[in-house]
Amino acid sequence: MKRRHFTKTLGAGVLAGAALPYTLGEAKSEITWKMVTTWPKNFPGIGVGVENLAKRVDELSGGRMTIKVYGAGEVVPALEVFDAVSRGTAEMGHAGAYYWKGKNEAFQFFSSVPFGMNAMEMNAWLYYGGGLKLWQEGYEKFNLIPMPGGNTGVQMGGWFNKQINSVDDLKGLKMRMPGLGGEVLKRAGGTPVTLPGGELFNALKNGTIDATEWVGPYNDLAFGLHKAAKYYYYPGWHEPGTPLEITINKKAFDALPADLQSIVLNACKILNQDMLNDLTANNNQALHALKTKHHVDVRRFPDVVLKKLKVISDEVVADLAAKDAYSKMVFDSYRNFRDVVLPWHAISEYAYLRARQL
Amino acid sequence: MKRRHFTKTLGAGVLAGAALPYTLGEAKSEITWKMVTTWPKNFPGIGVGVENLAKRVDELSGGRMTIKVYGAGEVVPALEVFDAVSRGTAEMGHAGAYYWKGKNEAFQFFSSVPFGMNAMEMNAWLYYGGGLKLWQEGYEKFNLIPMPGGNTGVQMGGWFNKQINSVDDLKGLKMRMPGLGGEVLKRAGGTPVTLPGGELFNALKNGTIDATEWVGPYNDLAFGLHKAAKYYYYPGWHEPGTPLEITINKKAFDALPADLQSIVLNACKILNQDMLNDLTANNNQALHALKTKHHVDVRRFPDVVLKKLKVISDEVVADLAAKDAYSKMVFDSYRNFRDVVLPWHAISEYAYLRARQL
Repeated sequence: MKRRHFTKTLGAGVLAGAALPYTLGEAKSEITWKMVTTWPKNFPGIGVGVENLAKRVDELSGGRMTIKVYGAGEVVPALEVFDAVSRGTAEMGHAGAYYWKGKNEAFQFFSSVPFGMNAMEMNAWLYYGGGLKLWQEGYEKFNLIPMPGGNTGVQMGGWFNKQINSVDDLKGLKMRMPGLGGEVLKRAGGTPVTLPGGELFNALKNGTIDATEWVGPYNDLAFGLHKAAKYYYYPGWHEPGTPLEITINKKAFDALPADLQSIVLNACKILNQDMLNDLTANNNQALHALKTKHHVDVRRFPDVVLKKLKVISDEVVADLAAKDAYSKMVFDSYRNFRDVVLPWHAISEYAYLRARQL
Repeated sequence: MKRRHFTKTLGAGVLAGAALPYTLGEAKSEITWKMVTTWPKNFPGIGVGVENLAKRVDELSGGRMTIKVYGAGEVVPALEVFDAVSRGTAEMGHAGAYYWKGKNEAFQFFSSVPFGMNAMEMNAWLYYGGGLKLWQEGYEKFNLIPMPGGNTGVQMGGWFNKQINSVDDLKGLKMRMPGLGGEVLKRAGGTPVTLPGGELFNALKNGTIDATEWVGPYNDLAFGLHKAAKYYYYPGWHEPGTPLEITINKKAFDALPADLQSIVLNACKILNQDMLNDLTANNNQALHALKTKHHVDVRRFPDVVLKKLKVISDEVVADLAAKDAYSKMVFDSYRNFRDVVLPWHAISEYAYLRARQL
């Protein structure tokens, strides 16, 4: 494949007519990057998405650039992706910004705000509302360039072994939930735990945790979480449209020629949408299988629980915004955008989804 | 810009070290394409989107490929884009598939189905549910490759000079509405008219039409439609997530080297999402301006009207599906996807938007 691209490019492109035996003989890529990730290699949707990104970079560059993708633990452990890319162990990483709240809690705004913006709204804020610029400013001192790297859409609320009928049912619950959602759970009386996806099934099965959220039907089915819990709750109030993140080592990026820089950044843009399309297409089939084949009990959180969690969420977000100047700046930008996009989506997306089921 | 890209590419890329005075002296693109469009040049959102596509192709190709964008009427009239690209007058076009229902009525499935799938669902169907493959098969005999080229999200219901309180109020109404929505309007007793966007204001002002839909607040404000009508209705039941379309002349595409082919197709993918982000970010501010500055009367269609229009819509779509073998094939694919994605979005996107406003 690479050889064909390369030859055709030269043939019809810049150097048409020139005899170049010394390059036509070496159809190998000039630049090879490593990408470390937080997921098992080729994991449905999120793992496959970055493999597609690597293929796309190869194609767009006519074989000049290769990205080799590593699953969690192959080069570095899942939750060391940020540091590994920061120090240059790998040139790229794929994870979620809320995993790095230890670096700066404000980074959680770039992944998931409980009762916050959904996928469409996050994309609009990041690319057209100043969000990505603030994200990139925040990562600069770590020698990193972040890019939105695939959105999950509204996630599921999680897997439980008991019914959640009131907020009291969350008290004492040891539940895997990263980011701000975890803090909300804590203030509701639960104990949030952060674990990489690959460890969830065992932790739930052996009782290390009582409950867990992961992503949505497609990814949850792949981990077999339905074999470790009875009830599957919706909606995912804690993750209404989480963009995953690509991190790029800034030094490595700066060393690329301008067209490869553009190819890398644009491949991230495509990944961001492509993964959402993939998950949208596959979540429904997985949901169907979970209901009909595995007889999972799918339940909606009662309104009384959602209302209370929303009140706590607003407090958690306000406290986060008060932490430092950067947090305040990110929150102000997020809030200003949210406050105008919500009235628009109330009369467009929401009004339409409502009308469709009249 | 081009020269810099070009030089840097060669410097650090394929030919590092080789002396190439004869190419470094000619920093002009090797391939120049014309793109004809259905909109005024640089029209907010949809016109700007294709200018961005052209810039992106320039960047990704290191200046090797240039696309020059023409507004409606500059090379060919707005509604002749399809034919112009088909016969090679231009290599690319930007329009909406429902404008070409005269070629095959089934093409309307690739733009807008009343009470059908929204932007997220259309993207998932087109890229991951077989929709794009069927679209490309349908355009093949016209020497065209179609690609989704920007989604509007849920549109507005349109501009009216009288209130719509019952379906009877649509009777005798001469309204600009393309595609299947127009057919629904016709069966509800109205008279649908197809006009390019640039003619709407005058037609509405001078009474050639009684009402019109266009896109959403951002684009509608740009045409000044609020100066020609009193009431602004939502939701856009007739266009719940219209992908615009890029058409590519197949012969011209086949003549490109593989990497430029990949660059063109991937630039379309980015355009498809980028325009939605742009419109999402700007529709809300335009809506705010229409309400507060221009005192537009924004109203929701009564449920009784929406319900009746939905019944008619289902009939229109069923009739279309019965037209020929291709229409049936496209409809079956559309319906099969819709029937599984709707239950998923009912417990994810819809359940979340509902929970957010409890």
